[in-house]
Amino acid sequence: MDNSGVTLQDVADRAGLSLATASRVLNGSSRTVGAAAAEKIRRAAADLGYVSNGPAQALARSTTSVVGLVVHEVDDPYFAAIARGAMTVAARHGLLTTLANTFHDPDREIEYVKRLQAQRVRGLLLAGSGVTTEGYTEALAAVLEGFARGGGRIALVSDHNLPYPGVLPANKNGGAQVARHLHDLGHRKVGIISGPSFLSSVSDRLSGFTGAWESFGLDASQIPVVGGDFTRSGGFAATLALFERDPGITAIFALNDLMAAGALAALADPLGYRVPAEVSVVGFDDLWIAADLRTPLTTVRLPLEDMGAQAMDLLLSTESMGADKPRNIHVPVDLVVRSSTAPARIAGPLA
Amino acid sequence: MDNSGVTLQDVADRAGLSLATASRVLNGSSRTVGAAAAEKIRRAAADLGYVSNGPAQALARSTTSVVGLVVHEVDDPYFAAIARGAMTVAARHGLLTTLANTFHDPDREIEYVKRLQAQRVRGLLLAGSGVTTEGYTEALAAVLEGFARGGGRIALVSDHNLPYPGVLPANKNGGAQVARHLHDLGHRKVGIISGPSFLSSVSDRLSGFTGAWESFGLDASQIPVVGGDFTRSGGFAATLALFERDPGITAIFALNDLMAAGALAALADPLGYRVPAEVSVVGFDDLWIAADLRTPLTTVRLPLEDMGAQAMDLLLSTESMGADKPRNIHVPVDLVVRSSTAPARIAGPLA
Repeated sequence: MDNSGVTLQDVADRAGLSLATASRVLNGSSRTVGAAAAEKIRRAAADLGYVSNGPAQALARSTTSVVGLVVHEVDDPYFAAIARGAMTVAARHGLLTTLANTFHDPDREIEYVKRLQAQRVRGLLLAGSGVTTEGYTEALAAVLEGFARGGGRIALVSDHNLPYPGVLPANKNGGAQVARHLHDLGHRKVGIISGPSFLSSVSDRLSGFTGAWESFGLDASQIPVVGGDFTRSGGFAATLALFERDPGITAIFALNDLMAAGALAALADPLGYRVPAEVSVVGFDDLWIAADLRTPLTTVRLPLEDMGAQAMDLLLSTESMGADKPRNIHVPVDLVVRSSTAPARIAGPLA
Repeated sequence: MDNSGVTLQDVADRAGLSLATASRVLNGSSRTVGAAAAEKIRRAAADLGYVSNGPAQALARSTTSVVGLVVHEVDDPYFAAIARGAMTVAARHGLLTTLANTFHDPDREIEYVKRLQAQRVRGLLLAGSGVTTEGYTEALAAVLEGFARGGGRIALVSDHNLPYPGVLPANKNGGAQVARHLHDLGHRKVGIISGPSFLSSVSDRLSGFTGAWESFGLDASQIPVVGGDFTRSGGFAATLALFERDPGITAIFALNDLMAAGALAALADPLGYRVPAEVSVVGFDDLWIAADLRTPLTTVRLPLEDMGAQAMDLLLSTESMGADKPRNIHVPVDLVVRSSTAPARIAGPLA
């Protein structure tokens, strides 16, 4: 029975048409119904305040008009921007979005994928970075395989090492662009503040930087790397730890903009360094706030909203499935130079 | 049939127990099942990779383990923080959250409420500000009434003039606190940049300010108010328009922090005013970015994440429904003074 108490039969009766016709019009069946009949049914439904029964339709079709979107943290502008792009495309297709927030807990991610599968979502978009923790990819793969076997659609943002279509930002190349920028400004004493190393986006950004640094004939093993949460407060704490370890650092590479925001705050107070005159700071992501921070931030731009939209397009496009190889979209990145980087105050010895 | 192909009967067979017992254990019925039997069923379900059928359960119970959350814009940190708080509480209750993004379109809000009702969500949390547009409240009330009649739970954030429990921030009082702060700093030529006037939060913040301003014996009708989108770019454009109208302004009250971020950017470039030496800026909301903006922002603090958590608590608590009067939570606000406000450069005539 319907919450409103109005049944599909009531709608059909009021329109003077059959139950089958009412069902075709209101439940979006592909069978053709004449325009006049469709209009009568719609008017009757509106008059009666009929609300269709989603779960009954889901049982009949074994899917719903809902897609699942899994993010690590909706309160992080990185995920909020991806979610906005994905939800814009979903809404254009008449789909609702069930958003699952893992709170950065990989076990919870797998749990949510199961829950969303049980809700018969039409597709699953995993927006969080892949995790290199032992056993995680295998466990996630097993759950996703069952979902895909039942006709569920899957798309990914960032590298997950899984056989589903994905939107893959050039994290390594971005790290390399940061290395070149700081190198060309004469910085030789660079410190890195990093998110959890089990995130593939973190390890890619880091290896992109160190690979390029070595290619300039410099020793990347000498670069201090301090880990922390991939958040503003994680960046604040890591910056303090970095300068305690080496007060001579002239530039910080923060592996995302949230950590860079924390670095700028820590450099201002309590450390008391001027940015960029004394210390340069580079971030990664180009969140919308990057240009508005206390020093407008030099960072690597990812088109986050577009990435979310592209991933949802991949999920909903028919050609993305069934092909021999999953279709991936490779997203180029660009360094955006703002006010937080300048030539090193004391250039190190040239390599 | 289940996506994974494993049926409840398969689970019962493997455990050597009846279908009814398997159903009671896995579908959370309140009927008692012995602990040993429950353990056998759970182990069999895990072994077989059984995934319960959400829509079938929803039909049987006429509700789902999903709550609906309606926001205007997930990419706005105001809503992202409320969503985080609400989703934290929902997750604690084992509920998934379907997030609907209205993209600031009131008609879409009503459409989404209907869609979520059709999906048999257990409850609806409307996080967006109420809208004073003619006919909107009546239309929304009609849809919500049908949902509530069917046993659906409803909670609101901000004033909607609807008979459901709500979390109500003291927007008027916040506006009054801003008026007192700017008055006490000697500002007499104040300009206001405002979001859409049909939002009740906008009209409350504005009337709180002007009411207090008049109480100081000043003429609030002389204050220039420029409207725009409730966004960073809306604040940027409104600030340019404000200074074109009156270049002598010494302080700006932005009705939310996003608009304040745009004001700070516009004052820096192209207007070329120093903040706070030449122009003071006050925002509203205390988004997490407020302290990290190019000038750390004086603003009115709303405990956004707590507000989202409290609203979801209201939704899920039993006593909130059925009472004669809906239970409301009134949330006090506080002015947080940072670096963006200072004494007026030229004090106006004392009132």
